[in-house]
Amino acid sequence: MSKLVAVLPGDGIGPEIMAEAVKVLQALDLGLVLESAPVGGAAYEAQGHPLPEATLALAQRADAVLFGAVGDWKYDKLERALRPEQAILGLRKHLGLFANFRPALCYPQLTHASSLKPELVAGLDILILRELTGDIYFGTPRGRRTASDGHFPGTEEAFDTMRYSRPEIERIAHLAFQAARKRQSRVTSVDKANVLETSQLWRDVLNQVHGQYPDVQLDHMYVDNAAMQLVKAPKAFDVIVTGNLFGDILSDEAAMLTGSIGMLPSASLDRHNKGLYEPSHGSAPDIAGQGVANPLATILSAAMMLRYSLGLPNAADRVEAAVQAVLSQGLRTGDIWSAGCERVGTADMGDAVVRAL
Amino acid sequence: MSKLVAVLPGDGIGPEIMAEAVKVLQALDLGLVLESAPVGGAAYEAQGHPLPEATLALAQRADAVLFGAVGDWKYDKLERALRPEQAILGLRKHLGLFANFRPALCYPQLTHASSLKPELVAGLDILILRELTGDIYFGTPRGRRTASDGHFPGTEEAFDTMRYSRPEIERIAHLAFQAARKRQSRVTSVDKANVLETSQLWRDVLNQVHGQYPDVQLDHMYVDNAAMQLVKAPKAFDVIVTGNLFGDILSDEAAMLTGSIGMLPSASLDRHNKGLYEPSHGSAPDIAGQGVANPLATILSAAMMLRYSLGLPNAADRVEAAVQAVLSQGLRTGDIWSAGCERVGTADMGDAVVRAL
Ligand SMILES: CC(C)[C@H](C(=O)O)[C@@H](O)C(=O)O
Ligand SMILES: CC(C)[C@H](C(=O)O)[C@@H](O)C(=O)O
Repeated sequence: MSKLVAVLPGDGIGPEIMAEAVKVLQALDLGLVLESAPVGGAAYEAQGHPLPEATLALAQRADAVLFGAVGDWKYDKLERALRPEQAILGLRKHLGLFANFRPALCYPQLTHASSLKPELVAGLDILILRELTGDIYFGTPRGRRTASDGHFPGTEEAFDTMRYSRPEIERIAHLAFQAARKRQSRVTSVDKANVLETSQLWRDVLNQVHGQYPDVQLDHMYVDNAAMQLVKAPKAFDVIVTGNLFGDILSDEAAMLTGSIGMLPSASLDRHNKGLYEPSHGSAPDIAGQGVANPLATILSAAMMLRYSLGLPNAADRVEAAVQAVLSQGLRTGDIWSAGCERVGTADMGDAVVRAL
Repeated sequence: MSKLVAVLPGDGIGPEIMAEAVKVLQALDLGLVLESAPVGGAAYEAQGHPLPEATLALAQRADAVLFGAVGDWKYDKLERALRPEQAILGLRKHLGLFANFRPALCYPQLTHASSLKPELVAGLDILILRELTGDIYFGTPRGRRTASDGHFPGTEEAFDTMRYSRPEIERIAHLAFQAARKRQSRVTSVDKANVLETSQLWRDVLNQVHGQYPDVQLDHMYVDNAAMQLVKAPKAFDVIVTGNLFGDILSDEAAMLTGSIGMLPSASLDRHNKGLYEPSHGSAPDIAGQGVANPLATILSAAMMLRYSLGLPNAADRVEAAVQAVLSQGLRTGDIWSAGCERVGTADMGDAVVRAL
């Protein structure tokens, strides 16, 4: 039976970059069924909600979800429940996408694009594994109330709950150790166990699960130190595993260190390896509609999808090789352009990947 | 009446770097009374608690506190309440030190020490203002319990509470706008208002307080984006104001961007400008006792103390000028050394500053 892919382009540059990823998937001629639906601000405008029921139903029915990007300043004034980013939070929650794989790699052809000195990033290859359905993102209770204690009792306060249960930590820990085995067998678990109860449990569980992976090295690092070590010596890391909030911050920091966030895909998986695949960058409303956005992160996200959710590793290899080929041909979108290379637009880049397949 | 300074050297390199700062203060001959007390692991070993009552009482009685550093791997197995870092959390809480000023500056002589390309950090001068007595650091309830809902009801979970009250946010917001007026009049407030209730209140209050400072520019940025923009274009920032948890992460990231965290002082103030002053770096147990640590961040922290808590701005200027002078003489401790400079130890560096006064 042919596989169904939910295609959710979203806002900003989302539709442009998604068009190129779809072009590549179609060129592969794998018999995939691609079905599109609106999401984010686009869905709010069309149907009054960032994650319409039909869109969620499609994502649930599909074998995998390919996601562009959501968000735009113009929705900042909406109440939180209607803002574009609720779509992505809703998809994660309803699809149970607890494991976010965010590779941060520095392509040899693009080392110069990094803010960091080339010797610090050449060959960089970190895998950040971020827990995606727990932590302070979804913890309850949360809201506003009158403070009953603290520094200013009787005044208005807002509050959120950070929380992790033991099995939530266990399942992401297993994935981290298993991923490390396919790489350099080193896991750095990041927490703030010197301050947070949640982090202390996180650390305890990581240590326990580690007992089943004696061949993998496990270190613990506080999040503030991790933010520093990523800048100082990013190549010292192999796999980083951390909670939802710290993972949000560190995975973006690490992506930016490579200098080519426009190249970085991500996968968010459920416990059956069904997943949502999206570029690591955002919707970039400032350049939307100009045909200059880099579609490669989305194309590489499609490759991850072929490999992890659709069982088509050969097709994934072909896409990744084609991306390498266009880089080696010297084609660059504006975000990764440097002197001596040929500057191309979004569609040209997609066409070049198709030709290189 | 002569001013009393509580001198708390702490662990690791703390005693070594503090000795140099004390040397400098004594050389200034300001009639200060310097009284020392143990803190952190050292205090735990001597008196069974990281923040003994006598140490806290001294800090409360003093006009200012000069703090070295605390912590060592060897205390990792202690229960949390006895670990060295509880001393610093306890001092912040009991002294009401809600405003942490963390400058991230790149000295012209040390631009090369940064991981970043020189043009990205030359002339860097960011002030990070971190709220220090609220947020998830001190919020209750916190602990472990059996989950009653969530993904795995009935299993063990750990939880913490993030919270901010309106007046807590107001007072740090005022300080941010006032600090910005003495600089480039730009404030970037960092939060995660797309996810957290606490952040939404933070953002609302920042906007309200901003009404009283129409001459200052205010922007809001999500913490994940801030972690990226610090890497991409750190010089775009002037003043960053943020909560305790995000400030912990971003101030360390920014410090490391300069490449010379061994040079960066910090001040933590209460509402009467009484403060605790400490280097931005940690206790570095790996190099403790070797006489190689950089004492300049502690010496510069003493200068901040002279200026902000002791009303001695001229003495502060003298210390800062002396530090500039030793850098221009080419003296460097190992952490900031580069070819062509003279490598000196901790005590030599302190002596050189004294000579340059
Ligand atoms: C849009 C936002 C809610 C989201 C997050 O914080 O998880 C984004 O930053 C991400 O990392 O995918
Ligand atoms: C030691 C630790 C509790 C502390 C903090 O998180 O505040 C430290 O990292 C700091 O920034 O001063």
